[in-house]
Amino acid sequence: MSSLDTVIQDLVIANRILAKEDVVDAYGHVSIRHPDNPKHFFIARSLAPDLVERDDIVELGLDGQPVRDEARALYLERFIHAAIFEARPDVHAVVHAHAEDILPFGVAAATPLKPVIHSGSFIGAHVPVWDIADRFGDTDLLVRNMDHGRDLARCLGDHKVALMRGHGFASAGRSLIEVVRLSVYLPRNARALTRAKQLGGDIKYLSEGEIAARAAGYSPYSAETWRAWEYWANKAGCGHMVTRPDGKHDHKSKS
Amino acid sequence: MSSLDTVIQDLVIANRILAKEDVVDAYGHVSIRHPDNPKHFFIARSLAPDLVERDDIVELGLDGQPVRDEARALYLERFIHAAIFEARPDVHAVVHAHAEDILPFGVAAATPLKPVIHSGSFIGAHVPVWDIADRFGDTDLLVRNMDHGRDLARCLGDHKVALMRGHGFASAGRSLIEVVRLSVYLPRNARALTRAKQLGGDIKYLSEGEIAARAAGYSPYSAETWRAWEYWANKAGCGHMVTRPDGKHDHKSKS
Amino acid sequence: MSSLDTVIQDLVIANRILAKEDVVDAYGHVSIRHPDNPKHFFIARSLAPDLVERDDIVELGLDGQPVRDEARALYLERFIHAAIFEARPDVHAVVHAHAEDILPFGVAAATPLKPVIHSGSFIGAHVPVWDIADRFGDTDLLVRNMDHGRDLARCLGDHKVALMRGHGFASAGRSLIEVVRLSVYLPRNARALTRAKQLGGDIKYLSEGEIAARAAGYSPYSAETWRAWEYWANKAGCGHMVTRPDGKHDHKSKS
Amino acid sequence: MSSLDTVIQDLVIANRILAKEDVVDAYGHVSIRHPDNPKHFFIARSLAPDLVERDDIVELGLDGQPVRDEARALYLERFIHAAIFEARPDVHAVVHAHAEDILPFGVAAATPLKPVIHSGSFIGAHVPVWDIADRFGDTDLLVRNMDHGRDLARCLGDHKVALMRGHGFASAGRSLIEVVRLSVYLPRNARALTRAKQLGGDIKYLSEGEIAARAAGYSPYSAETWRAWEYWANKAGCGHMVTRPDGKHDHKSKS
Repeated sequence: MSSLDTVIQDLVIANRILAKEDVVDAYGHVSIRHPDNPKHFFIARSLAPDLVERDDIVELGLDGQPVRDEARALYLERFIHAAIFEARPDVHAVVHAHAEDILPFGVAAATPLKPVIHSGSFIGAHVPVWDIADRFGDTDLLVRNMDHGRDLARCLGDHKVALMRGHGFASAGRSLIEVVRLSVYLPRNARALTRAKQLGGDIKYLSEGEIAARAAGYSPYSAETWRAWEYWANKAGCGHMVTRPDGKHDHKSKS
Repeated sequence: MSSLDTVIQDLVIANRILAKEDVVDAYGHVSIRHPDNPKHFFIARSLAPDLVERDDIVELGLDGQPVRDEARALYLERFIHAAIFEARPDVHAVVHAHAEDILPFGVAAATPLKPVIHSGSFIGAHVPVWDIADRFGDTDLLVRNMDHGRDLARCLGDHKVALMRGHGFASAGRSLIEVVRLSVYLPRNARALTRAKQLGGDIKYLSEGEIAARAAGYSPYSAETWRAWEYWANKAGCGHMVTRPDGKHDHKSKS
Repeated sequence: MSSLDTVIQDLVIANRILAKEDVVDAYGHVSIRHPDNPKHFFIARSLAPDLVERDDIVELGLDGQPVRDEARALYLERFIHAAIFEARPDVHAVVHAHAEDILPFGVAAATPLKPVIHSGSFIGAHVPVWDIADRFGDTDLLVRNMDHGRDLARCLGDHKVALMRGHGFASAGRSLIEVVRLSVYLPRNARALTRAKQLGGDIKYLSEGEIAARAAGYSPYSAETWRAWEYWANKAGCGHMVTRPDGKHDHKSKS
Repeated sequence: MSSLDTVIQDLVIANRILAKEDVVDAYGHVSIRHPDNPKHFFIARSLAPDLVERDDIVELGLDGQPVRDEARALYLERFIHAAIFEARPDVHAVVHAHAEDILPFGVAAATPLKPVIHSGSFIGAHVPVWDIADRFGDTDLLVRNMDHGRDLARCLGDHKVALMRGHGFASAGRSLIEVVRLSVYLPRNARALTRAKQLGGDIKYLSEGEIAARAAGYSPYSAETWRAWEYWANKAGCGHMVTRPDGKHDHKSKS
């Protein structure tokens, strides 16, 4: 496959993984920046991620509009992706989702979401909460245009994740694998923290130094990173679509 | 298929979706008003929703009795549906279920169930709690006749959902897709609120304006609404039964 | 099939249902009294319930010993069943299990387990907690002989369920379907109550009158009872083994 | 199969069981000491446990290094296993995992993890919490070398399990079946305790005498122990790989 074919195939896999891992349901989406044109990005047409195939991927500009004639419906909230790609040249992949276990942290002011387990370190030391009402008043909470998207991107700043009050989250990564991993472990970190609160007493969060040490050690194509991608793809039923970092199309499956 | 055939097929799909999404188990039911005769409605015979097929659908009147000779057992609580259709001409579909995560809100007086996430907005700003004991004293809690049903319908008023103390809920929608979606996201909103309470501090609910804005933006055949129906039907194993809003029988399934 | 064949087939189905519904895992068991000889009962040999087939069923006496030569290992805790059948002529089926969500109620003294949802009414108004240590001191908590079993049966008294501290529960029913249903809804009632406690404030339990009304209305072969059995059997993959109350071997399965 | 073949086959099964039971995901690993050479042990190469096959098993020394040329990536944290095998001649199998429900007990100081249910007795009366920061300051929390591993092994001492703050746990058993069973019931005990705390009031833990009585009664090849191994292997889809304790390769599967 050409490099671009591989990018699109990986985006299909990412859609399926996020569905299988309960990060998205009928709603939520994942995008990747065009590898050769940083002003474009790929995302599925309006479709549940679990059903996405290659032909469902469309190419959009940083204004959130399709770069070719497109008759099919698009995600209303594609402006989340457009605005983050616009504001953050370092970001190559974005997820927006409503993963259930992070929702309480968007509405309960008393407990900020912070890394409490090592696999949650990638959410970063601070997770801002964006409230669309602060600037736009009473809305349907959806990010329906670039103004909404840019306001969210401002709140995200140079962080990895922003919670969206009463709605979900937006996460940003340097690579597709990174943003998928971050989005899968974000709810797990949220659950661990929620239960730790139930146990009572002081909670020991990861230190700033630990978060930094883990970020420094992260490599998008390490054996450890790849191990999870391969596992999740198999679990989601698309192990056969995986292309290895060395370019081999080698499918490990269970006997 | 004729229009009526499609209505019945959609009701079969709705049964399967509600089962797959854990809204119903062996108990709970969903009904749809007859499109041509507002004094009749369709519902399954006494059968677990996951097993319902076309031939299991029966036609009842607004007294909850079958309009044709029927030898098969019917749901004891079909009067929930009859009484809501009787009281609410705007309602075209009804669900009754015992979804586990809403049950605590029917018995714990301290925390009213209110929308705290955007997908929960469709339950409306106020969810009344109906207690059969208020009027009927000690019963088996089942809605066994029109008196019970009408008392529940009075409590529901012009709301979308009524909780039934120690029992479950009844929800009412303008369309089948709407009431299914509402019934799937109702427990999710309940879980998000339960966990937010565990995190402590003030909770930010959706504002009345946000609930209204979302209701105003809702369209039963929008791309967003359809996306969820298609997703849930596929997940429930009946994607092949889906008829698209444009009348095409077009099945999107995973490669 | 002969009547006895049907009894044994139903016991196989009950094993599978309890496994599928997460009431049992590798541990836990279900038994039924011999229909023609009240001093005997049937139970599987030492085997995970999900794997039980007809040939795995053995016949034991009220001393918990096999009535025929038996080379295969038996459940260590078969004395739970023997002692309850001995003490309770009205009981025709017994379940012992470690269903996870009831365990907290056996060890946290502050919150007694009581019916809070209508499907939980069958556990009865009072659920005693048996602590093996009260009479036998430090043991491995297992009911290893008739002394242990009889002490548990005394605690159970004429109730439907006894919790076993730090261990699980024993439930007793007039029929196999009844005890399976009771055992499936017992953890659900426990979860609803646990979450209601988290919501805070007063909790409205079922009244004694409601519990009595529901018990009075219960019929082991009603359409409602049958509906659940048929549903659970299908879900557990053994719908084809079901014999209907009218003796027909009629398998409803999904198209 | 030769004895060594059986050991490796059992290790494959253990990998699959731990994945199916949600003890591990892409991360986490299980090892077994070489039966003939106590200075060597077997563990998978860097691979998600659910995908492990016979050819993925490698042989390492007590320094955590492969005893033969090995081109494939190895688990970064294999030093957990090496250091525990080095320190504990009585230990023949080790698991390291991030099972979600134990994580809160590693970070919330107020509630120590102790056995509260009989199947949790095997974690022992005291579960120490190891914090890598105590000795090594800010790290990425991974056990990357023998210094880290030996510090963890010192904290484990002669216990069965050590929690690893913000990371997971390490468990040690006299046999593979024992450490798998321990690792499966560890999160269950954690959940039961977390929920018991929610119910409030005093909690009745297993007594020291009960824990000792259960440990004394444990036999790695009893019918009860075998029952769980057979069940879990079948559930994980590898019942056909199971070799019985009597050496027979006899596969019980569902009809």
